[in-house]
Amino acid sequence: MYNSEQLLEKVKSALSDVKLDNKPKELYEPISYTLNLGGKRIRPVLVLLACDMYGGDIKYAINPAIAIEIFHNFTLLHDDIMDNAPLRRGKETVFKKWNSNVAILSGDTMFALAYKHLAMSDTMVLHNVLEIFTKAAIEVCEGQQYDMNYETIGDVNIPEYLEMIRLKTAVLIAASLKTGAVVGGADKKDIENIYKFGENVGIAFQLQDDLLDVYGNQKVFGKKIGGDIFTNKKTYLLIKALKDAKGKDLADLKKYYSSTDFDYDEKVKAVTEIYNKLEVNNSTVSLINEYYNKALTYFDLINLSNDQKSILKKYTDNLMQRNF
Amino acid sequence: MYNSEQLLEKVKSALSDVKLDNKPKELYEPISYTLNLGGKRIRPVLVLLACDMYGGDIKYAINPAIAIEIFHNFTLLHDDIMDNAPLRRGKETVFKKWNSNVAILSGDTMFALAYKHLAMSDTMVLHNVLEIFTKAAIEVCEGQQYDMNYETIGDVNIPEYLEMIRLKTAVLIAASLKTGAVVGGADKKDIENIYKFGENVGIAFQLQDDLLDVYGNQKVFGKKIGGDIFTNKKTYLLIKALKDAKGKDLADLKKYYSSTDFDYDEKVKAVTEIYNKLEVNNSTVSLINEYYNKALTYFDLINLSNDQKSILKKYTDNLMQRNF
Repeated sequence: MYNSEQLLEKVKSALSDVKLDNKPKELYEPISYTLNLGGKRIRPVLVLLACDMYGGDIKYAINPAIAIEIFHNFTLLHDDIMDNAPLRRGKETVFKKWNSNVAILSGDTMFALAYKHLAMSDTMVLHNVLEIFTKAAIEVCEGQQYDMNYETIGDVNIPEYLEMIRLKTAVLIAASLKTGAVVGGADKKDIENIYKFGENVGIAFQLQDDLLDVYGNQKVFGKKIGGDIFTNKKTYLLIKALKDAKGKDLADLKKYYSSTDFDYDEKVKAVTEIYNKLEVNNSTVSLINEYYNKALTYFDLINLSNDQKSILKKYTDNLMQRNF
Repeated sequence: MYNSEQLLEKVKSALSDVKLDNKPKELYEPISYTLNLGGKRIRPVLVLLACDMYGGDIKYAINPAIAIEIFHNFTLLHDDIMDNAPLRRGKETVFKKWNSNVAILSGDTMFALAYKHLAMSDTMVLHNVLEIFTKAAIEVCEGQQYDMNYETIGDVNIPEYLEMIRLKTAVLIAASLKTGAVVGGADKKDIENIYKFGENVGIAFQLQDDLLDVYGNQKVFGKKIGGDIFTNKKTYLLIKALKDAKGKDLADLKKYYSSTDFDYDEKVKAVTEIYNKLEVNNSTVSLINEYYNKALTYFDLINLSNDQKSILKKYTDNLMQRNF
């Protein structure tokens, strides 16, 4: 069995083998730029980890793994247009560096390239892998639409928010693990359990992302702390605070939340103080633990020895402890 | 064997069966709107025609046919954002009726839905059909990028233009026929010949579209005559005229071509007069005939009886005579 560092190297190597010096260069340069921005390559590593865990030959998992990573980066590319985001991983986004037409079309091409890699899957699993991937792709789009809807409607409740992040983030994590398990030859029951494991890990992972945006270590997190607060992004922390706050705290929260015309540091400090007072950080940590524990109940049902499952367990444990 | 009207009915019926009342409605309403705008459904009909011609059961061709039609409509949706086009088939484009974020994301979802239908192809042909589709999808994106490039660079020569329309328009026509032939059980040689037939028909078809935009019958063409002239679109007619014009004609052409601030009717009349003088219409008709004749040499190589090939022949003959 491989450890996750070895699998990450395999992913990086396969990604660097993706041929992107095609013409017209105006189309392929932004794709190459996007795929070279880096990132933790969590999803393709999960595909390989799950395949390897079942004793599958990871050479059959590498193409679906690359497909999922290209797809993930395509969604970021298009999301950045929709969110009008200037930076991604500390560098200019494609639509800022080039323009939005280039970003739309390069993204479309990446989606097709993802399927090109998926289509190279072994015939035995092709139908299955296609179905998992396409279902996830559609759900990610649905999640992004809910996210956009929630930007403009006033009231979003916690179940609605959790369903949005399930679609936008968790299903692709779950689909990565499920794909690896299918390629590795897992049985039907295990395939469903590893999917549910991934889905709950994914929700916990996104909640943690919300938390780190306020309470993380900037150097480790890689983004300026408080970005979500400053841009009025509806996160679990904000929704929970709006639910719990009363009197002056609620009025202040609504005041800050109604505009982006405040000084960055002043706004982040003031909102964080309200979050502290309401102990929103503790509620978020509890909810993260709740989802991760739920994930682990599905993990326990996976019909392999603890030894066989140890590398995946270690990897997701690490994910859940990043940056603290 | 079915005639093309019967196959069109089958396409329409299958399209109306595509389930699009999902949530969030903000995502699915624009998809439903787009797929209900109508159109001649040429590509899915070609898939079914080719399958039927080989004696294949068209029930195995209907899903790839619908996949190609959804993909085609997705490319129109995204192209309309990039071209800032207000109208499509006489109705508001999605990005005008909703907004560009909705158009981007609904388009992405349509691309995934296209693959969802493609993935329902018979296992025997799945790999093959996926490969044909994905290659065409990537080439269509490349063609659209060349088209955008050519909007901003001054000089485009005729071979560059023909290569652009081959990618943007012809390969999907060719892929439709090839897909139908694969599902219908054609042999390798025929599959290549029907592809080349479709590719040359596709180029002729796009050249004819360029021609009809200037010389068509508005009622039959469905768009206002002269739109390409008014918006300075680089078409075969313009490139050929810029190549052939001299003296005052060239100066006038360049003057009109340098701006969109002219009166619509005045500009279209003046440029059309230059086209008439240079007999650009005749050159275009010659080139259309050249490509259609080239297409027919590949058609003749297809190893079926003339009787078996007659319905497809009649259909493409009709396509080539539309609106005259």
